[in-house]
Amino acid sequence: MDNNNIEQSLKEYGARIDERLMGLFPVKNDYLSDAIWYHMESGGKRMRPALCLMICEALGGNPDDAIPFATAVEILHNMFLMHDDIEDGDTMRRDKPTVWVKFGTANAINAGDYLLGRAYRVLLDSNLPLEKKIRLLDIFTFAYERTVEGQALDINWRGSEDFTIDHYLETVELKTAYYLTCGMAGGAVVAGRSDAVIEKIWELGKSMGPAFQIRDDLIDLTQGKGRGGVIGSDIKEGKPSFLYAYTMSQAGAGDRERLIEIMLKPRESTSTRVVDEVINLYNKYDAINYAQKFAEGLVEKSFKIIEEIPVEDKTTFRELAQFMAQRTA
Amino acid sequence: MDNNNIEQSLKEYGARIDERLMGLFPVKNDYLSDAIWYHMESGGKRMRPALCLMICEALGGNPDDAIPFATAVEILHNMFLMHDDIEDGDTMRRDKPTVWVKFGTANAINAGDYLLGRAYRVLLDSNLPLEKKIRLLDIFTFAYERTVEGQALDINWRGSEDFTIDHYLETVELKTAYYLTCGMAGGAVVAGRSDAVIEKIWELGKSMGPAFQIRDDLIDLTQGKGRGGVIGSDIKEGKPSFLYAYTMSQAGAGDRERLIEIMLKPRESTSTRVVDEVINLYNKYDAINYAQKFAEGLVEKSFKIIEEIPVEDKTTFRELAQFMAQRTA
Repeated sequence: MDNNNIEQSLKEYGARIDERLMGLFPVKNDYLSDAIWYHMESGGKRMRPALCLMICEALGGNPDDAIPFATAVEILHNMFLMHDDIEDGDTMRRDKPTVWVKFGTANAINAGDYLLGRAYRVLLDSNLPLEKKIRLLDIFTFAYERTVEGQALDINWRGSEDFTIDHYLETVELKTAYYLTCGMAGGAVVAGRSDAVIEKIWELGKSMGPAFQIRDDLIDLTQGKGRGGVIGSDIKEGKPSFLYAYTMSQAGAGDRERLIEIMLKPRESTSTRVVDEVINLYNKYDAINYAQKFAEGLVEKSFKIIEEIPVEDKTTFRELAQFMAQRTA
Repeated sequence: MDNNNIEQSLKEYGARIDERLMGLFPVKNDYLSDAIWYHMESGGKRMRPALCLMICEALGGNPDDAIPFATAVEILHNMFLMHDDIEDGDTMRRDKPTVWVKFGTANAINAGDYLLGRAYRVLLDSNLPLEKKIRLLDIFTFAYERTVEGQALDINWRGSEDFTIDHYLETVELKTAYYLTCGMAGGAVVAGRSDAVIEKIWELGKSMGPAFQIRDDLIDLTQGKGRGGVIGSDIKEGKPSFLYAYTMSQAGAGDRERLIEIMLKPRESTSTRVVDEVINLYNKYDAINYAQKFAEGLVEKSFKIIEEIPVEDKTTFRELAQFMAQRTA
């Protein structure tokens, strides 16, 4: 399948959860449903649920049986975005004001909490055998907890002078690996696959997740991240990116001090000129080049791990990994 | 059993979850465990887990089997306190600065999210038969979702001139009834009781919860609520209390306008003099007296509901209800 077809499939599979989402969040024009639909309708690629359904089918399962899990994963994704935007102080997402900006912090926290409850509800109400249902709840909770741990690391590394590439990788592994691939893991469970398959899927996440994130860090310097086309959001917000970690490991004392100083500045006082200064520092130590190479290495590793997944036909895994690797390139 | 004995029992049963809590939240001196233990150690009566274990035993179950559920309920309680304090802007709890004040909003949101994950984890890891485990997860999720819905109503009624006693009761039912009694419901499930018992326990919560909350509203005017002995926190924060709802239903246009004006004032500009003004308004319309009577009516109703719970021995239910009714009087 070529990439256009994969993209089309992802869209079609992703759209299959929309009916379930509508059932879980009836439009009542109250402070929960308004905030939730404001956020959910603002786009989002439904990639995670599509991965769940496609992997389930590829492994011989009936994707209809995986719809509750796929739905829960999409809800989880949106819950994290909603809470993370508050925690990070992000004011724009997908070129719209974030939920906490539009509805206030209280409603944004609460709407996120509600999303999580609905995710568990859709899992509990599925028609699967008890054994599978519990396994799916277990996987979901596992991925949820690791992601929260990663977020805790992420928000507390800001402005630290001890931040290294190892810290970056530990944080990003926790924060992105599990919930990027937990849809696949759930799809495999629905298809009746063993824990050995699930373990390999988590391992895949540990390469794909950081590869994804490093490229996201790079995109922030070139195109911006859907926040009104602003370049260098991570620098303004003092987010500890791969580029920051690498430059800190290479730079002399003076440059290190200056970098930390800038990362600790409040966002509003980090001007475009200062962002350019940081980008120049990154270039001085060849960080952008190094980051690109590092991400490519992780993608290669992902393909090796796919070969080790104990299933017969790895085509869909390969195609999806290929697509994801190129999409973020 | 007299009230001293009940109080002693509640303490002893409550303490039985401490080991499980220590296992779930190892002290790692990071931003999750620090914030969580800062909050959990600050007291709290462990009443909800005690209710779970005592009802389980009273209904013929083994309370050891109910420890995971009791633990999950205590975690849920603390998670709500942590998020609600942010949403309400409360700066003090149990005479200490709240978690968001001490660790920042980002860490407080995240620590609350983590608590919820741990609650599901302890439920999933219990040794109960699958059938019971799923029922407990279902009850837990049900209570969680209703509570979040109640919180959504609560934070959005502030300063509304349309706020009535019916709105108050709807909000408080959702926000307090289910999670006050979900420990009992879980205890009953562990003891092998039917859905008919659970339904009556929810009904009990719908009387006990509002009774509890109305008395909490009253305590705020007499003793303060563990927020450094401050009287009238609800008035300062513009929280829509029972007294506010009743006074709004009775007062003339001038008094109503003045009340709304005060409720919408930022907390820091609501002086002691203004709090006294509101208390005088409450007295003018006999709201405090009416609230006391209303709460007594709900307690009476609770005892009637207890008689309808389809179990043989209702002694423990009666004793617990008696204790809870007096404690908050």
